[in-house]
Amino acid sequence: MAEEPTKAGSAGGGDREGDDEQVVNPWEVTAKDGGKIDYDKLIEKFGCQRLDESLVRRVERLTGRPAHVFLRRGVFFAHRDFNEILDVYERGEKFFLYTGRGPSSEALHMGHLVPFMFTKYLQDAFKVPLVIQLTDDEKCMWKNLTVEESKRLARENAKDIIACGFDITRTFIFSDFSYVGGAFYENMVKVAKCVTFNKVVGIFGFTNEDHIGKISFPPVQAVPSFPSSFPHLFSGKDDLRCLIPCAIDQDPYFRMTRDVAPRIGYQKPALIESSFFPALQGETGKMSASDPNSAIYVTDSSKDIKNKVNRYAFSGGQDSIENHRKYGANLEVDIPVKYLGFFLEDDAELDHIKKEYGAGRMLTGEVKKRLVEVLSELVERHRKARALVTDEVVDAFMAVRPLPQMFG
Amino acid sequence: MAEEPTKAGSAGGGDREGDDEQVVNPWEVTAKDGGKIDYDKLIEKFGCQRLDESLVRRVERLTGRPAHVFLRRGVFFAHRDFNEILDVYERGEKFFLYTGRGPSSEALHMGHLVPFMFTKYLQDAFKVPLVIQLTDDEKCMWKNLTVEESKRLARENAKDIIACGFDITRTFIFSDFSYVGGAFYENMVKVAKCVTFNKVVGIFGFTNEDHIGKISFPPVQAVPSFPSSFPHLFSGKDDLRCLIPCAIDQDPYFRMTRDVAPRIGYQKPALIESSFFPALQGETGKMSASDPNSAIYVTDSSKDIKNKVNRYAFSGGQDSIENHRKYGANLEVDIPVKYLGFFLEDDAELDHIKKEYGAGRMLTGEVKKRLVEVLSELVERHRKARALVTDEVVDAFMAVRPLPQMFG
Repeated sequence: MAEEPTKAGSAGGGDREGDDEQVVNPWEVTAKDGGKIDYDKLIEKFGCQRLDESLVRRVERLTGRPAHVFLRRGVFFAHRDFNEILDVYERGEKFFLYTGRGPSSEALHMGHLVPFMFTKYLQDAFKVPLVIQLTDDEKCMWKNLTVEESKRLARENAKDIIACGFDITRTFIFSDFSYVGGAFYENMVKVAKCVTFNKVVGIFGFTNEDHIGKISFPPVQAVPSFPSSFPHLFSGKDDLRCLIPCAIDQDPYFRMTRDVAPRIGYQKPALIESSFFPALQGETGKMSASDPNSAIYVTDSSKDIKNKVNRYAFSGGQDSIENHRKYGANLEVDIPVKYLGFFLEDDAELDHIKKEYGAGRMLTGEVKKRLVEVLSELVERHRKARALVTDEVVDAFMAVRPLPQMFG
Repeated sequence: MAEEPTKAGSAGGGDREGDDEQVVNPWEVTAKDGGKIDYDKLIEKFGCQRLDESLVRRVERLTGRPAHVFLRRGVFFAHRDFNEILDVYERGEKFFLYTGRGPSSEALHMGHLVPFMFTKYLQDAFKVPLVIQLTDDEKCMWKNLTVEESKRLARENAKDIIACGFDITRTFIFSDFSYVGGAFYENMVKVAKCVTFNKVVGIFGFTNEDHIGKISFPPVQAVPSFPSSFPHLFSGKDDLRCLIPCAIDQDPYFRMTRDVAPRIGYQKPALIESSFFPALQGETGKMSASDPNSAIYVTDSSKDIKNKVNRYAFSGGQDSIENHRKYGANLEVDIPVKYLGFFLEDDAELDHIKKEYGAGRMLTGEVKKRLVEVLSELVERHRKARALVTDEVVDAFMAVRPLPQMFG
């Protein structure tokens, strides 16, 4: 049985003994020597493919609309079989989207929104159904939260996710504690039968001292890739392809899933994978939930945002106005410019800022001011949308129900 | 945290490297050197308690009826905290029973019926609710059955179990594939968080090459011990004690469960444990599903039974009538006498047979003839009872429903 490609001899992100390599797995993202994540190395190590310009053009051609900012600016930079999903779509067939979140915190930050903003775009552009998994069981086990607290956070996070604008006629949100069972559990068992302990040690870096809850979990995240896990949605559509938009630290789960899929008669899920949204303090990994000043939260006020950006956003500008005018800003490390790359939709304005700032004609303060405006507007829009998400709306999205118009 | 007692340095039945010790775990029962299982050694190794005469008398006193044959003849010979269950009952409080079966074969044999016959007696004598778990997920993983076949066998086995006469107003039967989820899954996660991979290696003898389905399974068998796994039955009764009648090879699961229970705020389940029902060919372990002549099945005809008993039941009689009259039968190894010990209810008649046969005045043929009668009657009664178990009856026992009269 051919395995999913990974670099020979590599444990695919799990191993970290005695080397100073970067570590990227679902629970840890650490660059080598405190530097930046080397995404080329990651693609090589994980064995996924780079998402090149021609694929982006193909998406635009097929959907008849401009590619999302995250696609045309390379935030989503890697994939597995995304081209096959486009083949499917081009033939007039359908697929479904699957994404998720581990509900470990009360409020989401900008980095958490990235996959959901992108998934909403994919749903709108391709008119396809979407399942969103809230892994409250995972967070209960890894973060040592109680079952009740994990479930509560899952519902709170669901509100923020819904506020991203998903179409209720095409979207099913579920939490593991409420949905594991039935056909879903049957698929968990089918997957678990195909994966040895040694295999999860290789993929995820588990040890003999890890509890069996962790060792049991990978099938839970694997099986939403299979349409038969959702009989109320996809009954009789066992060959429906699945596309998973996610950050690349989730690749280990789906590498495992793709290994197993053909052995149990299922289609491999395709992936479209993003880089990490950088911390305010600089691009050395993901943001830290333990440091509220490392991220902009959707609950931050405009004043909070202004304060955080001005005080903490790592600047590539020079240390004096004279030097700045002379040498210009280092855009490679400048966080305000990076953030604008995510959230300023106007390509012309972004190019202008990069050009002027990079040449020293624009100062850090001006760039930060523009970023504060962009973020404040985004957060304000999110706050308004979230205020409309009542418990009844959450119940409606999470109801186990057919979606008769989901491909319409 | 004090652990459940097991012999120091022993892996409690899981380990078998480099020794010729007997092996007893849920998947393997092998005596030392092909001899008989040493139950004293097992009690010492597992750390459970011998069920002595005084406990049997106490059961009779409390229930106001004679103890079941299996109890007064020592088939159920070991326990954990059974005395506490009796304390609870004596105080006028209640408990619930939990037993189960791994549905790996179409028809049950006499050995399979032993725990169910005994559990029915306990349910009748104490008037308590009962949950019966069918581990179709386990058999799917261990026996490499398909999900569909495991589910089908679970339903077929449920019919034989129901035919044992359980009270539908006090009995909930469930299969894991249909019932895992919700509160049950929440408890699985709580248990799994408390058990490391090293721990299950020690208890069950798993290896790094075992698949993670096996490693994930022990919490599934653990959590029916906890009333909160059945909110439709025991909502608000989180301290209800649980008594588990089972064969002693299941002890490892519940040793683990008892270890974990106090750490998650739950009561430890109590156990009452039986020895193994011997194979027709002799008492060296459990019967083999791969050899149909090693057991009497509930589907055997009277002719089958007569044929099997006469041809295969290991006799302790002497090799010639002369020697038999002179030395008498060796009752220690005689299978017909052992089987009569399980199923001939009349104590006086059993004593008579043992005395006459042991003294050589009764011949093997006569004892076998009586056994054929007893087994044929039992199997015929079972067949008639099973014929009445329609699919609707199975659905009724397996319906997730409250049991308002369960303690009545």
